[in-house]
Amino acid sequence: MTMIPAFPMESRFLRACARRKVDTVPVWFMRQAGRYLPGYRALRAKHSILEIAKTPELACEATLEPIRKFPLDAAIIFADILLPLEAMGLRVRFSPAPEIDRPIRGPSDLKRLASRPEADSLFFVGEAIRLVRRELDGKVPLIGFAGAPFTLASYMIEGGPSRDFLRTKALMRESPGAWRSLLDRIVRVTLSYLRMQKASGAQAIQLFDSWAGALSPEDYRRHILPATKRLFSGLKGLGAPLIYFGSGASGFLEDFARAGSDVVGVDWRIDIAEAFRRLPGKAVQGNLDPALLLAPAPVLKKAARQILRQASGRRGFVFNLGHGILPQTPPDNVRRLAEWVHQYGGGRRK
Amino acid sequence: MTMIPAFPMESRFLRACARRKVDTVPVWFMRQAGRYLPGYRALRAKHSILEIAKTPELACEATLEPIRKFPLDAAIIFADILLPLEAMGLRVRFSPAPEIDRPIRGPSDLKRLASRPEADSLFFVGEAIRLVRRELDGKVPLIGFAGAPFTLASYMIEGGPSRDFLRTKALMRESPGAWRSLLDRIVRVTLSYLRMQKASGAQAIQLFDSWAGALSPEDYRRHILPATKRLFSGLKGLGAPLIYFGSGASGFLEDFARAGSDVVGVDWRIDIAEAFRRLPGKAVQGNLDPALLLAPAPVLKKAARQILRQASGRRGFVFNLGHGILPQTPPDNVRRLAEWVHQYGGGRRK
Repeated sequence: MTMIPAFPMESRFLRACARRKVDTVPVWFMRQAGRYLPGYRALRAKHSILEIAKTPELACEATLEPIRKFPLDAAIIFADILLPLEAMGLRVRFSPAPEIDRPIRGPSDLKRLASRPEADSLFFVGEAIRLVRRELDGKVPLIGFAGAPFTLASYMIEGGPSRDFLRTKALMRESPGAWRSLLDRIVRVTLSYLRMQKASGAQAIQLFDSWAGALSPEDYRRHILPATKRLFSGLKGLGAPLIYFGSGASGFLEDFARAGSDVVGVDWRIDIAEAFRRLPGKAVQGNLDPALLLAPAPVLKKAARQILRQASGRRGFVFNLGHGILPQTPPDNVRRLAEWVHQYGGGRRK
Repeated sequence: MTMIPAFPMESRFLRACARRKVDTVPVWFMRQAGRYLPGYRALRAKHSILEIAKTPELACEATLEPIRKFPLDAAIIFADILLPLEAMGLRVRFSPAPEIDRPIRGPSDLKRLASRPEADSLFFVGEAIRLVRRELDGKVPLIGFAGAPFTLASYMIEGGPSRDFLRTKALMRESPGAWRSLLDRIVRVTLSYLRMQKASGAQAIQLFDSWAGALSPEDYRRHILPATKRLFSGLKGLGAPLIYFGSGASGFLEDFARAGSDVVGVDWRIDIAEAFRRLPGKAVQGNLDPALLLAPAPVLKKAARQILRQASGRRGFVFNLGHGILPQTPPDNVRRLAEWVHQYGGGRRK
């Protein structure tokens, strides 16, 4: 087996996460392994999302396609944030939106969940990570990831995507005991899952709080932050930088940052300069509007340079989108954008 | 005809908008005339949204139902934000989501729009306002409203509700001439529409920028703010307080406030104390999560008191939700909430 250096400081991406000096701004994209890529579409024509995620060779293939094609500074393992739900005892299907059989509708439904869930059954993700690390052979680091507690809880309760999160908010606000018990299980299985990813070779860990924007700052502080803090503190000693991405969290970014990650990922609804100002001591990741990847080159370039200008002179900046790549994105724009980030991000870096 | 005082300072709501001393916090709710009310549902069983909006007696009835039932401090005229699109030459249907026939897909489509649109054809809204003012007889002031330029433009371009606003953003970023021309027309018709509402008796004006949260601060400043500024400055001399509500705009609240309203309405994704801090010189309106109106009374009460505590000691606070009332809301909770705001909002007001 290949030697796996724990925190290889030659990586531009890992250096930026640690707020160290870099030659130019590192770049990767959320959902860089996705439907906008011909190889991934061909894979999906033959296999379901879960099949790909559960077959290490296929997950490896999906993970590597963007790395082979574009000058990205990090790979992110192909998986689905809902996999840990299966380890907790729920059944997930994609048709094509995710559907959870018999969602958690009240405190009594918690009995159907494993009381001390572990991520052993998700061994295939570890396998895929080992495979990808071997294939990458040190070229770029590999990011492992999981969904954040609120996002996972809302899927478990709503049974699928939601607009208003009414059932989730009701359980959260009206059944504090059941809510804590649910979040305890989520934290437990996620810790086990992410430790396994790290042990298998993941060199950074990102937690996706894609639906944090449904919450008020007070809800976040009271009902979510304690669980997220526990999660990050359980990952602290692993020697992998921790990234916490939230969408719609600009109103309570300071609370969000208190969860304890090294890097905070922000969406495009805030200036990067302002994010840095409000996040002292943190590296910042983001935040181009994914819709800009559909624009003509000059428009895309101008927007990317605007972000780079705002982050210029700041240590600890990782260029990314403010959300996942859209399926309609022309792959050529992804290449161009990565190239421009490297070209224009090398300026007045401290 | 009843005498219509321009800016009656005996009103708690209007006083708060002007940041004057009040006996207690005034309260009204976005979409307070809506599907959660039995009377409105009965009206809708017989009439379409457009029929109600276009028939002054029905619009008046819908406007007054919540005022008759609950101790609210302001009425808001029943209308739809898409009405001005008809005055611009587009056809709007509701089935039940709004659909625009032959949306604006490129610069050449602008030819189909009236080049100097006026709101004369929306005279029925003025009629409804006069009727409501007569019925209210000075009990509470009446708010007129319109959709903000970005929100209206996106309907005109997408042809209906949208998730990613890809077509709107493409036109905005790639065809600046056409975009400006479109926004010019929207500003023109909206100015005409809101002046007519004011002349008919509206005592405050709210602009709904419900989709501002789709934008980056840079997009907002460059593509939206100039139009919104022009709109507000054209309404400035009317003697009605101007309220600017935005959803998802917490990341660029300062830019949003520069548009020029007297009151800034915020969603629940920011603490009210923080909104006041970031909006010096402005009155603030908001911001309870509408999902809380579905919660048991003690949960709702606690959340409302938390907001009141944060706003306590501040001049210029108007209690509202962070978005419209949800259809599933029990009317009794609306009454309770309004009562609590009055009861607990009277404390340490300066």
